[in-house]
Amino acid sequence: MSFSLEFANHIIALDPARFEDEAKRWAINAIADMIGCTLLGARSDAAEATLLSGIYGAGDCLLLGRKQRLSRLDAAFVNGTAGHALDYDDTSKSLSGHPTVIIVPGLLALAETTGASGKDFVDAYVIGFEAATRFARGVNFQHYEKGWHPTATLGIFGAAVSAGYLLKLNAQQYAHALAMCASLASGIKANFGTSTKPLHAGIAARNGLFAALMAAKGVNASPVAFEHAQGFWEVFNGAGNYDPERSLKDWAQPLDLLAPGISIKKYPCVYSVHAAIDAAIALHTSEVPDSSVVTDILVRMHPRRMLPHVMNPATSALNAKFSLSYAVARGLVNGAVRLDHFEDAALHDPEVTRIMGLIRLQPLDDSASDYGGEVHVTLADGRTVFHTVDAPLGRGPETPLPQDMLATKFLDCAAATLTDAGAAQVFSMLMDLDRLESMSNLTAAIESVTR
Amino acid sequence: MSFSLEFANHIIALDPARFEDEAKRWAINAIADMIGCTLLGARSDAAEATLLSGIYGAGDCLLLGRKQRLSRLDAAFVNGTAGHALDYDDTSKSLSGHPTVIIVPGLLALAETTGASGKDFVDAYVIGFEAATRFARGVNFQHYEKGWHPTATLGIFGAAVSAGYLLKLNAQQYAHALAMCASLASGIKANFGTSTKPLHAGIAARNGLFAALMAAKGVNASPVAFEHAQGFWEVFNGAGNYDPERSLKDWAQPLDLLAPGISIKKYPCVYSVHAAIDAAIALHTSEVPDSSVVTDILVRMHPRRMLPHVMNPATSALNAKFSLSYAVARGLVNGAVRLDHFEDAALHDPEVTRIMGLIRLQPLDDSASDYGGEVHVTLADGRTVFHTVDAPLGRGPETPLPQDMLATKFLDCAAATLTDAGAAQVFSMLMDLDRLESMSNLTAAIESVTR
Repeated sequence: MSFSLEFANHIIALDPARFEDEAKRWAINAIADMIGCTLLGARSDAAEATLLSGIYGAGDCLLLGRKQRLSRLDAAFVNGTAGHALDYDDTSKSLSGHPTVIIVPGLLALAETTGASGKDFVDAYVIGFEAATRFARGVNFQHYEKGWHPTATLGIFGAAVSAGYLLKLNAQQYAHALAMCASLASGIKANFGTSTKPLHAGIAARNGLFAALMAAKGVNASPVAFEHAQGFWEVFNGAGNYDPERSLKDWAQPLDLLAPGISIKKYPCVYSVHAAIDAAIALHTSEVPDSSVVTDILVRMHPRRMLPHVMNPATSALNAKFSLSYAVARGLVNGAVRLDHFEDAALHDPEVTRIMGLIRLQPLDDSASDYGGEVHVTLADGRTVFHTVDAPLGRGPETPLPQDMLATKFLDCAAATLTDAGAAQVFSMLMDLDRLESMSNLTAAIESVTR
Repeated sequence: MSFSLEFANHIIALDPARFEDEAKRWAINAIADMIGCTLLGARSDAAEATLLSGIYGAGDCLLLGRKQRLSRLDAAFVNGTAGHALDYDDTSKSLSGHPTVIIVPGLLALAETTGASGKDFVDAYVIGFEAATRFARGVNFQHYEKGWHPTATLGIFGAAVSAGYLLKLNAQQYAHALAMCASLASGIKANFGTSTKPLHAGIAARNGLFAALMAAKGVNASPVAFEHAQGFWEVFNGAGNYDPERSLKDWAQPLDLLAPGISIKKYPCVYSVHAAIDAAIALHTSEVPDSSVVTDILVRMHPRRMLPHVMNPATSALNAKFSLSYAVARGLVNGAVRLDHFEDAALHDPEVTRIMGLIRLQPLDDSASDYGGEVHVTLADGRTVFHTVDAPLGRGPETPLPQDMLATKFLDCAAATLTDAGAAQVFSMLMDLDRLESMSNLTAAIESVTR
């Protein structure tokens, strides 16, 4: 049996009636957090740039945070781009990327135009998430390390599968949709730190939905699109750098949403530096309330997280989001890393610039927690103090973000485009998503409170 | 200087006033042939499948062969898919793929909505073609051999540059558009022979136009998207499998359109088997008019052309287009390879099936012409006859397709969707394309004669 069909059989075998309540709660939190991030990004430069006149047609699908509706594919693209514009959305260890920003935009466009229920939406999300992360296990971390942006190149499979669930694809159609995605996946890490990165998310969200729609319409693709000598694995990963067995075993035992689960971001910047920020803030709160006495800083993190972009200086609001130095300096100087720290005006703070210049980076052992981080600070009096964080707050089931912090983050984000009262009302609706009669009610409610 | 900016400077330096008349003639022929192929493919299953309701919005850009207009990006996608649906469109040796189907659809959507002249359109085509093929020289043939579908993954650069010419991008904007394309390129050869292959063309045409529009709007991408350790070259081709110098030298000396030039297809199937078909037809016309006496057949071709898909049996109209056996058998049995041979009903001819079963394939020397082919036939009386073709008719400046054959092909193709008189009128208009006042006149004329 071909890989795509065997994989599709695993998708078909998933039974929503057996999903744990805890998994559904994670799904609802992730969806709510994603919608918050999209409401925040809706009027960002990155999202505004995509809204050229004459390139889209009107349609029935809401652009979150705007009183505007486009066709399904265009709405998936614009919402996906907006959702990733501020790099504040959740991440998945299995995917090595951002899962929800690829799954939710197309699913929402489809659900609000088919009248799907909130329960179906949540189930579709869980299924798409499981599929994307199972597929990812077969190619990671080599896929990530080679330079692909897995958010897009692997997330697309989750988008296709979750849309496929609402479209009631059979196994053969799922297999075609997956094989089509093998020809639609794109996005390289060299473009991190530019306004092309959020486009990766929008394009993948769009293309995943597109593949599911095409497969439902009868478009075919190769039954051997993965295992072929010129198929996905050889072309994207290369010989010796993948293992299909890792993709096929242990489905839902437990769901990837429960282990290793997702990380919901607490800071509006790249996830790999979150532990170091937590450590820096802990030092600010305890032994280093005044950064002016700092003379040297050593940050240690897992070598997989030490990609070139984390040593970016923060020369623009966009590349500051990938700058370890900037984020750690903000944590030490301000005891917080907030949305307003990533506005252009904030980038030239003299003390933050001084602290950034003191930071050196060293790898931890390969065996260390790959989400962990340490910050060692030398003070003017010669003392050295340090703080170690194994996993930042928000890192999945290990250290979940408390529900009140999730609510606060949502309200902060939604304030960019919704009325305050409206934002609170939408958050309540989201928390009860699995009891919502029709997803079109959700988008109607969001539209009605959009400023 | 970064590669993308140096490359962009070469684009800016191209001066249409210095383009040879012969190059413009090739451009016009290629554009006319492409429009013919699109008119033919407009109502193919592959194109029809893309026209789902609710996924596009209305717009100002004509779908060739349909009385329907969509937005720029959607029209580029649908026309690109239709143009490649029958695999009858031209090919480029430098690209190792189909150049015009990626350049023309987006350019047409842009030109008819900006009122660009026919001269600007032709110049934009020449510039986009030169850019795509120069870029391709730096990564081929390794890029093709690895399994990418260069039509899409390299053609996208031509689409972006030709649209960029009409949008009057400056060098910096061209560089951003190219770097964006490095994150939008997709398509693998495993999906050849399925209805996903024409989607590759549509998506690349759409994305190339998209990148140019985004760059014009101010969206940025990495200045080092190509040379970065996780940039296009390393990620798509891998270390040792590319050479940027090959992309940067000898621009327009002469234009790639003149050497090695493009191949206009005479048969509606994959170009790599054209020489073998010519040889088979030559044998039918001379020594083997009756295929029933054939007992054994040996086909020899360049090893680069002997990819797995050419040994496909012809089990569907789509994969028959990639079947060397089917095409050579048709040539020997019928002395012709026509559009109607690729309809489902034609695939089960008993004598063609018998002949297909006799065919063996052997490689020529690596030093042989990579467009050549030989067919050796053993007859019932024990004699062996053979025919050798170095380059099939239509192979660029070496053996150009005579103008009357180009006209006949166009009229055959256009008959699928235009009135006969209308098709002739559109062909005349196309032959004078560089004197057309506005490209919107061309699409209006095509729409008015669409059946």
